Amino acid sequence: MDGERFDVVERDEWRGAAHQRAEDAVAREEPLEIRIGGVPVAVVMRTPGDDEELVRGFLVTERVVDRAEDVASVRHCADAAEDNVMQAVLARGVEVDLARLRRNLYASSSCGVCGKTSIAAAMGCAPPIADNVRVPSDVLYGLPARLRAAQEVFGRTGGLHAAGLFDERGEPLAVREDVGRHNAVDKIVGWAAAAGLLPLSRRILMVSGRVSFEIVQKALAARAPILAAVSAPSSLAVDAARAGGMTIVGFVRGERMCVYAGAERVG
Amino acid sequence: MDGERFDVVERDEWRGAAHQRAEDAVAREEPLEIRIGGVPVAVVMRTPGDDEELVRGFLVTERVVDRAEDVASVRHCADAAEDNVMQAVLARGVEVDLARLRRNLYASSSCGVCGKTSIAAAMGCAPPIADNVRVPSDVLYGLPARLRAAQEVFGRTGGLHAAGLFDERGEPLAVREDVGRHNAVDKIVGWAAAAGLLPLSRRILMVSGRVSFEIVQKALAARAPILAAVSAPSSLAVDAARAGGMTIVGFVRGERMCVYAGAERVG
Repeated sequence: MDGERFDVVERDEWRGAAHQRAEDAVAREEPLEIRIGGVPVAVVMRTPGDDEELVRGFLVTERVVDRAEDVASVRHCADAAEDNVMQAVLARGVEVDLARLRRNLYASSSCGVCGKTSIAAAMGCAPPIADNVRVPSDVLYGLPARLRAAQEVFGRTGGLHAAGLFDERGEPLAVREDVGRHNAVDKIVGWAAAAGLLPLSRRILMVSGRVSFEIVQKALAARAPILAAVSAPSSLAVDAARAGGMTIVGFVRGERMCVYAGAERVG
Repeated sequence: MDGERFDVVERDEWRGAAHQRAEDAVAREEPLEIRIGGVPVAVVMRTPGDDEELVRGFLVTERVVDRAEDVASVRHCADAAEDNVMQAVLARGVEVDLARLRRNLYASSSCGVCGKTSIAAAMGCAPPIADNVRVPSDVLYGLPARLRAAQEVFGRTGGLHAAGLFDERGEPLAVREDVGRHNAVDKIVGWAAAAGLLPLSRRILMVSGRVSFEIVQKALAARAPILAAVSAPSSLAVDAARAGGMTIVGFVRGERMCVYAGAERVG
């Protein structure tokens, strides 16, 4: 399994003025084309493995489908020359708005482009998350070590982001790695979709890096009540979490952390 | 200037079992819509400031234009309600292929989707970089500290990526910060475009994080002979750099580093 997720390359290892040729593992990155009903809708650059989860998660977190059950099946294309094309089949009667996939191109509205329009788009028509889960600080302090312990490939390559899903006692349900931060979250959401755990009621989504708006957007689509991170959130990530009723915990390091939104779920 | 790049928010700061309400600076993130001749072509989530550089760089590194001189002007839209719309005007006689902007959606070719097709797309029709610059290891060892010293906002927020352009003696020419790794590189390339420094002959592009395929793709479009990073490259980043004749130096930390491609330019 690991053999798919990293490549071994030759490189010069320098220390001071000396160097030697040696082998090193680097995280594997390959394009993945996602098709719906035969139509290519997106290409993501991802670490191979967990491709079905990635596609299921992507379709949910990008709001291509309204519910995880709208996706009947996801499989590698039988007629493709290699493994980098996945085909999603929608459930009977489900239609999707493929224009939503063009996330780099918002429709220009009369009010222009601003944080407010971004947040409205991220929330879709969903109400704020009302989950009443409450997690002790000790549980949150323990998450980074548990996430790191489950990262199989990071230790070999130093080059992978991670996302993990934990229950309210801090027990890990799933951890996934990817060269892309967004993909790691999508793989977790796709895993949860296949396990029948969406919406992510009473669960904690933890990411290894920073929290951008797009990470919050994906967490909101999966209805995660708590998003925790090792690093900092952006201003728009905080604004979107507050609007969406989601808790954001940043800088979880040792016995310290900062709660930027939804403080009522912590302590 | 800094006032535009971070917001001050209230959050709960936890230490052990105690917490207190306090103010904190978070990196600002806002959408920016890019228009060409009045047509919206992309929205990027970026840290405000250096917007003109960001747009000029984006148009070059995404290969929307062939040369920096193809962009006659970039300015904020006079008729937009706020500051998040930039309008690029092309030089007389220049036409662009707007379909190239849909970078999430590759054209499916008969050979399918794979690393090779990605690398071919990243290189455009350009030959491999033949720049004969050679940089001593000591110069490369010194870059992370110089990049960090020039990061104005990171120290306050811990939430910004950085990219810097250095000459072959390690002197910084420009450093830019952004919530997005790609944007930081685009701002540097846009700065270089405005300064008449494209292609990036004999210069070193340094990034604060990891090196993904897309970062190499952007560096190749700017014709950077050397790309250095604090963290790891991905497999496809290494493959693309080797195909494009670009040097990749990763894990530049203290007096250590790893050279993954183009070793002839180091030492």
